[in-house]
Amino acid sequence: MKKYLYSREYKKTNTIIDIKGTKIGGKKIIVIAGPCTVDNISYILETAKGIKDSGARFLRGGAFKPRTSPYSFQGLGEKGLQILAKARKETNLPVVSEVMDTKDVKLVEKYVDIIQIGARNMQNFSLLKTVGKIKKPVLLKRGLSATLKEFLMSAEYIMKEGNKNIILCERGIRTFVEYTRNTLDLSIIPVLKKETHLPVIVDPSHATGRKDLIISMSKAAIAAGADGLMIEVHPNPKKAISDKDQTLNLTQFKELMKEIKPVAEAIGRNL
Amino acid sequence: MKKYLYSREYKKTNTIIDIKGTKIGGKKIIVIAGPCTVDNISYILETAKGIKDSGARFLRGGAFKPRTSPYSFQGLGEKGLQILAKARKETNLPVVSEVMDTKDVKLVEKYVDIIQIGARNMQNFSLLKTVGKIKKPVLLKRGLSATLKEFLMSAEYIMKEGNKNIILCERGIRTFVEYTRNTLDLSIIPVLKKETHLPVIVDPSHATGRKDLIISMSKAAIAAGADGLMIEVHPNPKKAISDKDQTLNLTQFKELMKEIKPVAEAIGRNL
Amino acid sequence: MKKYLYSREYKKTNTIIDIKGTKIGGKKIIVIAGPCTVDNISYILETAKGIKDSGARFLRGGAFKPRTSPYSFQGLGEKGLQILAKARKETNLPVVSEVMDTKDVKLVEKYVDIIQIGARNMQNFSLLKTVGKIKKPVLLKRGLSATLKEFLMSAEYIMKEGNKNIILCERGIRTFVEYTRNTLDLSIIPVLKKETHLPVIVDPSHATGRKDLIISMSKAAIAAGADGLMIEVHPNPKKAISDKDQTLNLTQFKELMKEIKPVAEAIGRNL
Amino acid sequence: MKKYLYSREYKKTNTIIDIKGTKIGGKKIIVIAGPCTVDNISYILETAKGIKDSGARFLRGGAFKPRTSPYSFQGLGEKGLQILAKARKETNLPVVSEVMDTKDVKLVEKYVDIIQIGARNMQNFSLLKTVGKIKKPVLLKRGLSATLKEFLMSAEYIMKEGNKNIILCERGIRTFVEYTRNTLDLSIIPVLKKETHLPVIVDPSHATGRKDLIISMSKAAIAAGADGLMIEVHPNPKKAISDKDQTLNLTQFKELMKEIKPVAEAIGRNL
Repeated sequence: MKKYLYSREYKKTNTIIDIKGTKIGGKKIIVIAGPCTVDNISYILETAKGIKDSGARFLRGGAFKPRTSPYSFQGLGEKGLQILAKARKETNLPVVSEVMDTKDVKLVEKYVDIIQIGARNMQNFSLLKTVGKIKKPVLLKRGLSATLKEFLMSAEYIMKEGNKNIILCERGIRTFVEYTRNTLDLSIIPVLKKETHLPVIVDPSHATGRKDLIISMSKAAIAAGADGLMIEVHPNPKKAISDKDQTLNLTQFKELMKEIKPVAEAIGRNL
Repeated sequence: MKKYLYSREYKKTNTIIDIKGTKIGGKKIIVIAGPCTVDNISYILETAKGIKDSGARFLRGGAFKPRTSPYSFQGLGEKGLQILAKARKETNLPVVSEVMDTKDVKLVEKYVDIIQIGARNMQNFSLLKTVGKIKKPVLLKRGLSATLKEFLMSAEYIMKEGNKNIILCERGIRTFVEYTRNTLDLSIIPVLKKETHLPVIVDPSHATGRKDLIISMSKAAIAAGADGLMIEVHPNPKKAISDKDQTLNLTQFKELMKEIKPVAEAIGRNL
Repeated sequence: MKKYLYSREYKKTNTIIDIKGTKIGGKKIIVIAGPCTVDNISYILETAKGIKDSGARFLRGGAFKPRTSPYSFQGLGEKGLQILAKARKETNLPVVSEVMDTKDVKLVEKYVDIIQIGARNMQNFSLLKTVGKIKKPVLLKRGLSATLKEFLMSAEYIMKEGNKNIILCERGIRTFVEYTRNTLDLSIIPVLKKETHLPVIVDPSHATGRKDLIISMSKAAIAAGADGLMIEVHPNPKKAISDKDQTLNLTQFKELMKEIKPVAEAIGRNL
Repeated sequence: MKKYLYSREYKKTNTIIDIKGTKIGGKKIIVIAGPCTVDNISYILETAKGIKDSGARFLRGGAFKPRTSPYSFQGLGEKGLQILAKARKETNLPVVSEVMDTKDVKLVEKYVDIIQIGARNMQNFSLLKTVGKIKKPVLLKRGLSATLKEFLMSAEYIMKEGNKNIILCERGIRTFVEYTRNTLDLSIIPVLKKETHLPVIVDPSHATGRKDLIISMSKAAIAAGADGLMIEVHPNPKKAISDKDQTLNLTQFKELMKEIKPVAEAIGRNL
């Protein structure tokens, strides 16, 4: 039987991804935070400084945005990436941003520290193969109706091309449930930890779609064994371009960081 | 607009259910443990003593068993209840058992401390009305495809008849996911905590169907704000009548209790 | 391996249920129609006459109503059954009505020709066993999240007690889909036809929850091989006690009967 | 409020797409058939001739294959397209094939008559925009967990770029159901017919994953109002590279065409 590159059979020890000294998949829980969509330099800088003060390790923000409607704002593109790069320069926070098209991979790679593949593109195999050939780590989000096998095989598509630095991200699945945007499936964390050596993080913002649930589900994700969190934060969520209802402000994010700390310590980890 | 009896609008403070001095819904996390099906007095006694030593507060066991097939063992009936009662006498652990038929409610009430309504009967409205007229607390399990409104309205059916002591139990929902028996929906915990004053517990054994996930998901449930857990335990899971794959032995249960303790403390609670 | 009573291995030929000369499961497609809830004699009589004129073979109407909220109208009970019986006397249409509690089985049996088990009670095993002991045919609705095995095993619960006259009814499953109340799963029809000798009907009213879809889905159900349909009809849907949005008026029902006729004939059956 | 290009508000009359004289979306039901994966010229020619004899109007076959595993055969690429083109030349059947990468759109466009966007790429917005700029009609498959709005908005992405010739294809959604690969959601047909002027076809092969259900579900799809079908056919399904279990042989396909004919006529259409 084939030993898949993602599997524990292939590699027993946890993969720890080192990005300028910050390690993902090790003892430390890492938190990635920032707005859904990059809007302007002043908000991004305010976000970057605020989340860094609270203990976040990465800044996230979308420059190429997958939007259900073609009439919704599609992102600032390269200009958005430049804004992220500026914020990185000022704060030293490495940045994460999504790529949606094979032809943009080179461009995005130039600006970001972690390249993100969104849930809708989890089985965009051409894109997976392309990011498999770059050097930067890839954050791969689970598709809304992806099985375990499909999720891991999408990681395998990337690894097969040579890129072994993949971070898996649970971000909710589509179910009949009506009180959250999607259903956060935390059970996949210990399952992934058993099947693969790759780090696993959780995005409670997209999963729940409700800012009042994010702290609770962040604590739960860490208790379940996640290696990190990805949280939507904006200095003024009402003015955020997208995902207003699930975006924390900087004070709420600080509170989140404070509340997850003892949970991380309770399971022998830290922030 | 109607103020439902379950709602925070009707009653602001948490309902705390006191069963012979053990409080459900207060600061303490309570753990209910025991076999899926009551088999014999020696196993039940061994279970009761073992789980009590590890810190469990209630003994569970099925005497009337809802089984998919009519040819599967349907439970010992009253004899099973008598076995539970004996175990209670020896250990002082109050007991929880399921009722499936309106005509058995009086009988089950006589023997148990908490009467359980199973997931399949969550909308068996006749049964809900009947247990609404008894004095014992009711543990109401969420149906496999129940919405929030349906779940809370089933509690309302019971409360409307006079019985206000209801414990809600999340036990997994039915989704496309294939690596767990059901999908544990922990996001419902903070949602329920917002909507209702009733205590909320989680059953990771039925939700996951996999013993290797139970400790992780128990920690996650507590971190998410659950007031308690319901865990399947048997001294010799291989010999358990039902649910072998998701049943912990006494050593594993002891480990579970040890591991959840710091998580409970991290969020300001204890066991 | 056990040959289940429902299975084709146990009985090769289709079960045809004869109710006062009307056969369910044979060449003829039978249509059951009537209001969700029995309201008053004049509406019920008008309905019965109207649907009979259009070719319906059975009158349906709920006397005991499973309602999500305990504050919703719970049905007229025995009085509702008496109204149905009167309509039967005047029109000779046999009647179908639901039972929800083991203690009401005898009562409902006295008045109706087919006793219905609703979706929420598909795994109310006590109720299944009780209707297994009566002589009247049972219409068993699929639960909202029932697997094939669960559905068939619930039929087996009834058959094991002696009652072999069971009509299976697909009425939609719970999925993420938002434009219909539930998702009508017509693929289960040919699957059931392969696995079991029992007749299979479809309830597009509850499945879709939208009157504008009922004719299309009725045609599809027949084309897929269903032995009959169950349709919600009321002389004045706006005044119906429940399910207004999915209830046809008598003119729309007449149109439905007209439109399904050529489809039935196209597959070698008739009304 | 915006009038979307796909909407009935924007265009009242049905869009009829004319491909070399064959019209999709008109009175005639059109059938597209062929293997999941293009393998070799002799099988493809045999398929093309066989399906044409039975009344199919289009030949389908995958040259670029979206496969869950990177180790599965990924398709013949351009060579596969050349094989399809040869079969078209010999039989005059126009061909349908999938494109998965923006960079291959020009290539695929050169060889095929209808360009297909697969379910996994339904929200690959870069790909949608790219095929929006070509002249050939696009067959857009519904994603496994796509809502109505998401499905229609993906069509809008294409139309907004100028390409108005889009065929929507229901191919099953992901649910808890275990006896079919996916759940064929036929209710979306009348819903789409109400919301949009675009033609709608159904792929029962991928939806059910079971060849024994394809004829029944094809009849149901037509009865529900579909404008066409897409069926997997191979002269020797056991030797097909992919989807063996759901592929009809030429005799079974002939039977399918014979059986759907009277259903089409029953609703006033023809093949």
